[in-house]
Amino acid sequence: MKIYRANIVCTPTPKAFKMIPRGYVCVSDEGIIRCVCETLPREYESLPVTDYGDRLLIPAFYDLHVHAPQYRNMGMAMDEELLPWLEKYTFPEEAKFADKDYADKIYRRFIHELWMQGTMRSAVFATAHTQATKHLMHLFESAGLGAFVGLVGMDRNCPDNLRNTADEVRTFYEQCAESSAQQDSPSLVRPILTPRFIPSCSKQMMQAYGELAREYRLPVQSHLSENRSEIAWVKELEPEATCYGDAYNRYGLFGQTPTLMAHCCYTAGEELDLMRRNGVYVVHCPTSNCNVGSGMAPIRRFLREGLPVALGSDVSGGHYLSMLRIIQYAVQISKLYYADTYGKEAFLSLSEAFWMATKSGGSFFGRVGSLEEGYEFDALLIDDSYLNFDHYTLEQRIERYVYLGDDRDIRVRFCRGRELAEPVM
Amino acid sequence: MKIYRANIVCTPTPKAFKMIPRGYVCVSDEGIIRCVCETLPREYESLPVTDYGDRLLIPAFYDLHVHAPQYRNMGMAMDEELLPWLEKYTFPEEAKFADKDYADKIYRRFIHELWMQGTMRSAVFATAHTQATKHLMHLFESAGLGAFVGLVGMDRNCPDNLRNTADEVRTFYEQCAESSAQQDSPSLVRPILTPRFIPSCSKQMMQAYGELAREYRLPVQSHLSENRSEIAWVKELEPEATCYGDAYNRYGLFGQTPTLMAHCCYTAGEELDLMRRNGVYVVHCPTSNCNVGSGMAPIRRFLREGLPVALGSDVSGGHYLSMLRIIQYAVQISKLYYADTYGKEAFLSLSEAFWMATKSGGSFFGRVGSLEEGYEFDALLIDDSYLNFDHYTLEQRIERYVYLGDDRDIRVRFCRGRELAEPVM
Repeated sequence: MKIYRANIVCTPTPKAFKMIPRGYVCVSDEGIIRCVCETLPREYESLPVTDYGDRLLIPAFYDLHVHAPQYRNMGMAMDEELLPWLEKYTFPEEAKFADKDYADKIYRRFIHELWMQGTMRSAVFATAHTQATKHLMHLFESAGLGAFVGLVGMDRNCPDNLRNTADEVRTFYEQCAESSAQQDSPSLVRPILTPRFIPSCSKQMMQAYGELAREYRLPVQSHLSENRSEIAWVKELEPEATCYGDAYNRYGLFGQTPTLMAHCCYTAGEELDLMRRNGVYVVHCPTSNCNVGSGMAPIRRFLREGLPVALGSDVSGGHYLSMLRIIQYAVQISKLYYADTYGKEAFLSLSEAFWMATKSGGSFFGRVGSLEEGYEFDALLIDDSYLNFDHYTLEQRIERYVYLGDDRDIRVRFCRGRELAEPVM
Repeated sequence: MKIYRANIVCTPTPKAFKMIPRGYVCVSDEGIIRCVCETLPREYESLPVTDYGDRLLIPAFYDLHVHAPQYRNMGMAMDEELLPWLEKYTFPEEAKFADKDYADKIYRRFIHELWMQGTMRSAVFATAHTQATKHLMHLFESAGLGAFVGLVGMDRNCPDNLRNTADEVRTFYEQCAESSAQQDSPSLVRPILTPRFIPSCSKQMMQAYGELAREYRLPVQSHLSENRSEIAWVKELEPEATCYGDAYNRYGLFGQTPTLMAHCCYTAGEELDLMRRNGVYVVHCPTSNCNVGSGMAPIRRFLREGLPVALGSDVSGGHYLSMLRIIQYAVQISKLYYADTYGKEAFLSLSEAFWMATKSGGSFFGRVGSLEEGYEFDALLIDDSYLNFDHYTLEQRIERYVYLGDDRDIRVRFCRGRELAEPVM
């Protein structure tokens, strides 16, 4: 058992921050939170306490949509809309991952920065390359970070050097299933089915994914209704599908197993109903939706309709890995949406956006994402003393940390109870 | 004469970055750029060169709309629209500046952070308090930073403890004029007329401002068409004005002397024409427009129509002082506007937004804001080596610096030729 003392802040519900000034978190040797309290229960009184003084202890962040191989392109090449952007910048970069040395160099930096920014678990698109994707999973394991990692399947409308086949995809996931069967404890790094998006995947490819999902109960991640041209293209390519979402659903890839759908800027009507019925996660990527000129997703509406909503950086459509920034943009874009619709839909509160980046996103990984009893202990220790130069309440401190803080402020990072050292680059 | 060598990047026009790899900038003892070149002219060949290696030398940044007394509230209290936000958070904070010790504490931190973020000159709203405002001007001078500083005039629709009179305003600016008459060289810190906004200023107050503008040729700054409720309120208060802008114009406070108008989210029609005719600057504050839920200003249209456009952080409506972030948001919000209007209006390029934050904003201070012959030498030396881990072109480097960089990367700061030391907090 380990006991930590600090100002504890988390969002058990989206409605408000829960704060325990100078509280305690007691964590079992397996990394599970046994108790979060103002005063220590008698049974723990004699145990040693790691006292972090006036610092903040918050849940770690979860990035539910990110493209690891686009890390080199982060912060540049954003002068095009989605489809030409893919052709011009993204596919040529991803093609480089046929080279394992190049993949090693970029993936190590990517993982180092996830650690630096306090993103303890993520849902990651790799590339179409089996070897590099396995290497990425290995690097996550070495770093002690959690991840769902997907080999990206694409067999149409893509350059030849990124094309793979349904058989290659099947082999990759079968091998993953074999090696996980040999493990004793549940791994922090697991495979996720990753058809890139409908335009990239033939019927054969989608059928293979559907079979893999059913057979191995594997989760799914992909893109949905990001951009108007993309939606029009899907309509052309899949005339039988009743909506973009249905083009996944008809193959059993839309909530039949846990499913993440990034963007959903234009999701409404039947697609929205289907997502709610099937419990499909919306992964809101506000920086990316700005950078690639996609539009404003109606996130407040999704929350109102009861859809699970998580946040994603979507690097390199998104320009930065920090989930602090994604929380900011989620609130801010919801305020522009509010102004744009003459106040018809309320804007997001900070606690709601923080909850999306922690407890709501974390829920995709299990009992993860909050500082509550029974949850895996993923947490960040924050030193905000430089921001705290006047009398600020704990609630104001967390607000200022979200808007003004950065990686410098994170002093300790925990994933499933383990304090993580800086990964080797 | 001083000579600096580095990778020189600036925007002489909004259309593109001008880049001189490993170029030279020669600066006179008065701080004026005499030459920017690839190879040194013979006359300078024998002079010593400060060689900054592979680093970037860029123009400094200019923040054309910022409220110094709101620094304590930066990054918090953004759950309201403009008018209730003023009442609930902003006026109570500004009232504290009757206390000179409090003003000293907050203003020192504010100026320290401007320095830290590379904002070498700014147009600043102080409060209604004469003594604290003079102290702010003094602190700017001590730091070596440029600023237009305004005593904020407000004599209606405001709390009693922030109310001042036309006579107090007049006295302040007359005293400023007297002390500047005694100076030999043009000061980096100058007064600017600052009626808060139409709802705060009576006819008497506006008349006093108009007279001061005419008599002393003083520049003007204020707020314009930020939010729908505000615009409706102005219409009620000033039924004779033909538009919000006209409520300034009828007093000679709308371009008769150099004028900055912050926001202009809903400026169109007659107001837009008036601004163009009078050469009134739009100060675009994209972070603030998000945070306070005001809306998206049609900046591309303003550029197309030939209005001068600068950028402002508008702290604490804006949540952060870094002009890097403001550049990002300017581009990003223009992309949401683009998506929202089905691509009718093109989005801003990065060079356009960079130009707004440097040469266009700088022009309010004179020949300032670019690395060109005849310009005052305001510049930042940027070490982006940690971002530059692969083969990136100079153009990609500047793009990545704008999107990924922060205050850590600024190694040297120049204002009017002088290398500025860290201000005392």
